[in-house]
Amino acid sequence: MSSAIRIILVEPSHPGNIGAVARAMKTMGLSNLYLVNPVLFPHTNASARAAGADDILARAQVCTSLDQALTGCRFTVGTSARARRLSVPVAEPRECAARVQAESAYGEVAVLFGRERSGLTNAETDRCHLLVSIPTVADFASLNLGAAVQVLAYELALARRDDESTPPQQGVMQTAPAEDMRRFYEHLERVLVDLDFLDPERPKQLMRRLRRLFNRARPDDVELNILRGILTATERARANR
Amino acid sequence: MSSAIRIILVEPSHPGNIGAVARAMKTMGLSNLYLVNPVLFPHTNASARAAGADDILARAQVCTSLDQALTGCRFTVGTSARARRLSVPVAEPRECAARVQAESAYGEVAVLFGRERSGLTNAETDRCHLLVSIPTVADFASLNLGAAVQVLAYELALARRDDESTPPQQGVMQTAPAEDMRRFYEHLERVLVDLDFLDPERPKQLMRRLRRLFNRARPDDVELNILRGILTATERARANR
Repeated sequence: MSSAIRIILVEPSHPGNIGAVARAMKTMGLSNLYLVNPVLFPHTNASARAAGADDILARAQVCTSLDQALTGCRFTVGTSARARRLSVPVAEPRECAARVQAESAYGEVAVLFGRERSGLTNAETDRCHLLVSIPTVADFASLNLGAAVQVLAYELALARRDDESTPPQQGVMQTAPAEDMRRFYEHLERVLVDLDFLDPERPKQLMRRLRRLFNRARPDDVELNILRGILTATERARANR
Repeated sequence: MSSAIRIILVEPSHPGNIGAVARAMKTMGLSNLYLVNPVLFPHTNASARAAGADDILARAQVCTSLDQALTGCRFTVGTSARARRLSVPVAEPRECAARVQAESAYGEVAVLFGRERSGLTNAETDRCHLLVSIPTVADFASLNLGAAVQVLAYELALARRDDESTPPQQGVMQTAPAEDMRRFYEHLERVLVDLDFLDPERPKQLMRRLRRLFNRARPDDVELNILRGILTATERARANR
């Protein structure tokens, strides 16, 4: 069982799909399920489709925000049915699984699955270090949510098995957890608005670019403290003018 | 789209699963679905879960026997949740997909999925040249039928893509289709009983071993004619005593 990987479903509509996800996870040795604002949960359809994976449903964490679900995670993967314009790096499931497996040695990893119809929002994919897209035929890209989790969980299980003999590398940096990154971005946005660098009416594109930049950089705790320190110092300088 | 691969569901109980299978197939470019004695089909639950893959359901072939579903196939793969005692070779999905892709250049390939609760019978797995088993955690091996098809179809799609640049090999033998093999086995059994070699009350184990032997050998049409000729000659010799 891998306790370092959590599966996060963002606003799943159908309780049956939640059950199918639990079952898919259990077959592949995953046990940590997080549900962000599920439309109907708990529900008999979830239990029915879980078919023996009820323990995963019983232990599922129901969250009221993605921030809450990501708390403690140091690496975040988002699933995407299509290529995006302003894109976070995109990998296929096999490559993604190898990366997740490597990252899981150093901290908790989240794999996000979006809404059945509309997937993840841009703001949600901006929280991700990596996007994963399951290759499909061009004209019918829509995997069922449970089926998508099954494919990813299958590749994660293979990657875990392949990795079992390999000892974790030394000296890999301890990247800052998601909640600290979120506070940093909020702080950064406040400071940039205060500096008249950012139009508070239209902050989106610039903040998205900055998020992608820092998500690629993946600051560790010490580096993040330094960045926060710079922001605080900037604010103090403005206040003292 | 791969028209050389057919997915065969043997006695599926739940129409919802049939729909999920159609959807999984369509995402991965598979279109030929065969249903052997489905408990409920057509059914609204199948259409609902197909979610846009209705064309595959509409074109699904409903068969009254596995023989009928296998007619025309030259290579047959069976899915299995567990290792078997008297075993046909077992591969993992990735290896199996490469094999199916290679075989599909020379004739139709069938991938069999068994009943939701009990899988394939021994007699059904004996029809297979290869078994495929999706690796799972030891204590919870039960993938949902749609999820199992999704994993296999995903690996088949990757194998097809990997194979696209490679031209088919020359000189690979044209193996005999399933229906000719079935007639051969029936003929062989009759002859062996007639020869008092086979106890007609307990023919199973010996015939299973012979099936596995010939399935490994994979006779082509000419070779099969020769074998049938030998059987006929044997019968004639017995009749003329």
